[in-house]
Amino acid sequence: MNELRRDPITGRWIIVLLDNMAKITDFKLAPQVKQNASSCPFCTGHESLTPPEIVAHRKDGRENSPGWTVRVVPNKFPALRIEGELDKQGMGVFDVMNGVGAHEVIIDTPDHARDMGDLTYSETEEVVWMYLARSIDLRRDKRFKYILIFKNYGKIAGASLEHPHSQLIALPIVPKMVHEEMAGAAKYFEYRERCAFCDMIREEQRSKEQTIYEDDFFMVFCPYVSKFSYEMWVLPKRHSSDFTAISRDSVPSLARALKDSLARLKKLLQDPAYNFVIHTSPINGHERSDYHWHIEIIPKLTKIAGFEWGSGFYINPVPPHIAARNLLSVNVGAK
Amino acid sequence: MNELRRDPITGRWIIVLLDNMAKITDFKLAPQVKQNASSCPFCTGHESLTPPEIVAHRKDGRENSPGWTVRVVPNKFPALRIEGELDKQGMGVFDVMNGVGAHEVIIDTPDHARDMGDLTYSETEEVVWMYLARSIDLRRDKRFKYILIFKNYGKIAGASLEHPHSQLIALPIVPKMVHEEMAGAAKYFEYRERCAFCDMIREEQRSKEQTIYEDDFFMVFCPYVSKFSYEMWVLPKRHSSDFTAISRDSVPSLARALKDSLARLKKLLQDPAYNFVIHTSPINGHERSDYHWHIEIIPKLTKIAGFEWGSGFYINPVPPHIAARNLLSVNVGAK
Repeated sequence: MNELRRDPITGRWIIVLLDNMAKITDFKLAPQVKQNASSCPFCTGHESLTPPEIVAHRKDGRENSPGWTVRVVPNKFPALRIEGELDKQGMGVFDVMNGVGAHEVIIDTPDHARDMGDLTYSETEEVVWMYLARSIDLRRDKRFKYILIFKNYGKIAGASLEHPHSQLIALPIVPKMVHEEMAGAAKYFEYRERCAFCDMIREEQRSKEQTIYEDDFFMVFCPYVSKFSYEMWVLPKRHSSDFTAISRDSVPSLARALKDSLARLKKLLQDPAYNFVIHTSPINGHERSDYHWHIEIIPKLTKIAGFEWGSGFYINPVPPHIAARNLLSVNVGAK
Repeated sequence: MNELRRDPITGRWIIVLLDNMAKITDFKLAPQVKQNASSCPFCTGHESLTPPEIVAHRKDGRENSPGWTVRVVPNKFPALRIEGELDKQGMGVFDVMNGVGAHEVIIDTPDHARDMGDLTYSETEEVVWMYLARSIDLRRDKRFKYILIFKNYGKIAGASLEHPHSQLIALPIVPKMVHEEMAGAAKYFEYRERCAFCDMIREEQRSKEQTIYEDDFFMVFCPYVSKFSYEMWVLPKRHSSDFTAISRDSVPSLARALKDSLARLKKLLQDPAYNFVIHTSPINGHERSDYHWHIEIIPKLTKIAGFEWGSGFYINPVPPHIAARNLLSVNVGAK
């Protein structure tokens, strides 16, 4: 019989298909086709096709010229603009606000054809350092309440350009999803006096049933209440609510955890589209004992349909312990 | 400048792109390709390919044979099964429940090639009557708390079979999304002593800026805080929280509102994939003054990406008044 499982943080129920679970061959796998390198604005040598860079890691060269390894530029078509004052007003029953914010693109690598699962550990580490640097810089702007870092890989995951890149959006409000997750975690803490995420880590360390990766600092597992097939969570083992408070010596470990997980996903499921999102606490919040920052990796293998829109539930046709077993079965070289 | 708009019910913010809005030609339109009628289990003459029917409207013929106009069968691969007792248990920090529920398929028409936008008013009305009949029947099962009726049209909207059909899932719990929407509407009511949806209807009647359809009983408009491009809401003008409490004389009007809106969508955007969901109050709730049942139609034109997953916000590149204007510009015959 299929199973309904409840996420203790969001209160969301997931239907895990145990009766008719999906095999890998049931998914319509479609490896990403990379073709537009010649006109790609994110490729080395095409720096003039983007707005002027905000910052870059470089081995050599001047600003806005080749020689960089990770490069950050403003989004050419930003959802929110950095200029202007926040102006809130009522509009009948609605509230309306100016679209003030920052929308930056972090170009993960000069290489059009290599996504994070193909990068080396040290290349991935450079990207993580850039996430941190941009977060820390933007936190100083008093108009912003939240910094959201995410990655869309592949067209069906919403990437409009195929060159591997991440995005950062600084928001003048704390998003609904963050509020909900934090409120849920706070409720859990209030009741049990323990962090819900720390509890999940401990349970996973006991069972190891869904673990993909573990070292001194980080752990990756398919959560027991996975919304999506092959969903993976990357969690720091030491409790912390704030991504930017990460200890410098654990950054290489985060890079390894992320790269290894994405490499497994890529190899097992023929380079699927995916999103990942860094879940962290709002700006100017102090370190909280009831929230735990982490990264959620969501492969795009199934569709969101009417049932999900109407209920907020998800139907996951791959039980997470099977997903973990399959992900572990592929060989990914450590480099 | 783009605009952030807040939904007064869910508290969700939407970013409406006013700077760089999407033209119809910016969407990658891909009309549905219908091909598998010969082996389709939902076509007339293939009744033996589905589980035995639960009920059907028929002009003639016996059960499970041709002659029907709308036919309801159990889902062959149900997410939840009707047999069995609810059995809840803890599993570490998680709650787990048996997958008990009902999962039915409502085959809208015997005709493989005609979706609801192509049906006549009276054919659509028959489907609506069936939604009502199945809802009313399943409400009697004491294990169920909520009945969710929805439609997935087109592969990218999650339809696994192309023959036009709707689905009904009866759930042993009230879904998170319903809880949230009802809690938000209750909060609004508490503060203003008016139904939020009735307020939206009144505002729309004043401005008419986003209206697609209006008659004595129903109204269709693109909501001011549309999550998605060309999103449409179908609302009864008379306040009611419960879909099954609809007055018999307003059913033809609901059918017209639904069919007309879907016909416009189909014609304007070349037969796009879409979902619709009936939002109604839980079973055994009495009629509530703070909630208002309605149908949300969500065309699948853009992708859900990392930003949406991380924030619960949505970026909508078509301002709803433009969407409404475009939808109204196409000619759809009334029949």
